[in-house]
Amino acid sequence: MKIARSEKLFEVGEDALVAMITSKLPTNRDVVAGAGDDCAIVKPCGKIWHVLLKTDCVVEGVHFFPNTPFDQIGWKAMARVVSDIAAMGGVPLHAMITLILPSDFEVIKVEQLYSGLRRCAERYGISIVGGETSTGPLVIVSVSMMGKVNIKRCLRRTKAKVGDAIFVTGKLGGSIRGKHLKFEPRLKEAQWLSARPFVHAMMDLSDGLGKDLPRLADASGLGFVIEEESLPVSKGCTQQQAWSDGEDYELLFSVSADDGKRLQIAWKHKFPNLPLTCIGRFVKKSQGKIPQFKRGGWEHFKSRL
Amino acid sequence: MKIARSEKLFEVGEDALVAMITSKLPTNRDVVAGAGDDCAIVKPCGKIWHVLLKTDCVVEGVHFFPNTPFDQIGWKAMARVVSDIAAMGGVPLHAMITLILPSDFEVIKVEQLYSGLRRCAERYGISIVGGETSTGPLVIVSVSMMGKVNIKRCLRRTKAKVGDAIFVTGKLGGSIRGKHLKFEPRLKEAQWLSARPFVHAMMDLSDGLGKDLPRLADASGLGFVIEEESLPVSKGCTQQQAWSDGEDYELLFSVSADDGKRLQIAWKHKFPNLPLTCIGRFVKKSQGKIPQFKRGGWEHFKSRL
Repeated sequence: MKIARSEKLFEVGEDALVAMITSKLPTNRDVVAGAGDDCAIVKPCGKIWHVLLKTDCVVEGVHFFPNTPFDQIGWKAMARVVSDIAAMGGVPLHAMITLILPSDFEVIKVEQLYSGLRRCAERYGISIVGGETSTGPLVIVSVSMMGKVNIKRCLRRTKAKVGDAIFVTGKLGGSIRGKHLKFEPRLKEAQWLSARPFVHAMMDLSDGLGKDLPRLADASGLGFVIEEESLPVSKGCTQQQAWSDGEDYELLFSVSADDGKRLQIAWKHKFPNLPLTCIGRFVKKSQGKIPQFKRGGWEHFKSRL
Repeated sequence: MKIARSEKLFEVGEDALVAMITSKLPTNRDVVAGAGDDCAIVKPCGKIWHVLLKTDCVVEGVHFFPNTPFDQIGWKAMARVVSDIAAMGGVPLHAMITLILPSDFEVIKVEQLYSGLRRCAERYGISIVGGETSTGPLVIVSVSMMGKVNIKRCLRRTKAKVGDAIFVTGKLGGSIRGKHLKFEPRLKEAQWLSARPFVHAMMDLSDGLGKDLPRLADASGLGFVIEEESLPVSKGCTQQQAWSDGEDYELLFSVSADDGKRLQIAWKHKFPNLPLTCIGRFVKKSQGKIPQFKRGGWEHFKSRL
């Protein structure tokens, strides 16, 4: 069925919309059956692989402004989940997309949204195997993903140790100026890190260092001490912004105290264009210090765009 | 952290909300790590099992009225996905929950919503391994699920054959009067059917026979002929309603013409309280007949509650 791109959703209906969306989904060799049945069918992983599951969503007015290009919204929705799979040392495999859209939403915008979702999926070898569409008063894109991780290389939040050096990739703060729509999840960097036994714990920075570092420390039962002036700051940003802005999608990880220098040298050789910075260390919970910043990162239900 | 149940979400914030939600999630033996890290970790299935992936959502004003009890909304959101996994002959395993909630939504309602989600998960042996919460102008509950299916017993929509008898379980129509919030996904019935080689194709009825039967026929490249007067009708409903109301969550499946009677006898013995009805047969696409009903089932973007 041919759809004019200026038609509204209530004019074309669900089946035509789904047919349009599913006509060009990316796939990969693990897919037995993609979209079109009650469920997608993908092949189980081998013995050394565990399955990773993650879901995330972006909401109009919370994660993007109403005038954001829809291609970028699609990229962001997919890339956020890739960033989480990467942060475990995992490989993203299969995605499902839930779209909530107003019924007078233009079909061409759905195409743009899916164009961004596909662009990101194809970039990282991910198949899109299904999803759901429904009506609602504003745009919401929810992405669920299955990935795999080598059980010996999985990087949890729980495994940081007292004395570990705290590292972050890239620069922090000011993501709202554009990076939050265009960032590259640190998949290859995370893969490389997960192969190094001196990396103990890792997560991605989505709500801001000020929210996420305490979460990693808590999960490992530790405290932390950071050197405020060492934070790698995006151009034109303050250290306060690097601490609290959020949406950096960089990696935060812990490394044996003795191996920090070795890591820095190997990193510079492997990823010369991405800064790597030691910002402090993990300590016993009782010895942790709260940094001297005013705000603490993005908080859903409390913060607003 | 203790939360007063009358507090609003913007008063307690995301971390306290997530801590409350994740303190009593169901789990099962396949879970290596549940909620709390970037991703959940579950064990891969054995060689004869394939992985099923499904996502679905319920939206205020579309799938439930604003005054619906939240426990029932939670049950419905989870049970809809169980119904899809069941319809493939699969076993539901792990679920992730995305909640979109207004920031002045009362915490006690989140508890009620999760109580319904947990009740359904526990009933069917499903673990809840993560999810996402965000703000939005109305309530949306999205459930993503991973299941497994024995590759030899998987029932696709694509495998119906010319001459197959068309069967439906239960009675159809009038779900809006209450069944749509309280239905039992036909998991054990679907498991039983998937072990019978004369069952060729199956799906669950969610958008109504008038939408779903043509989808099954299309997927198999077939037409169908039904006997309108044979439709199993819920008490007080017309055949038109049985055709077009939707949200029946019964099973629709195809059976070799020669085995229909044998199935009926075995079914009556195994599931004496659930009607099983032959409503017609699959034919070549060119020989299909469109039934004499006015409306064709639930259509998103076109239909409204």
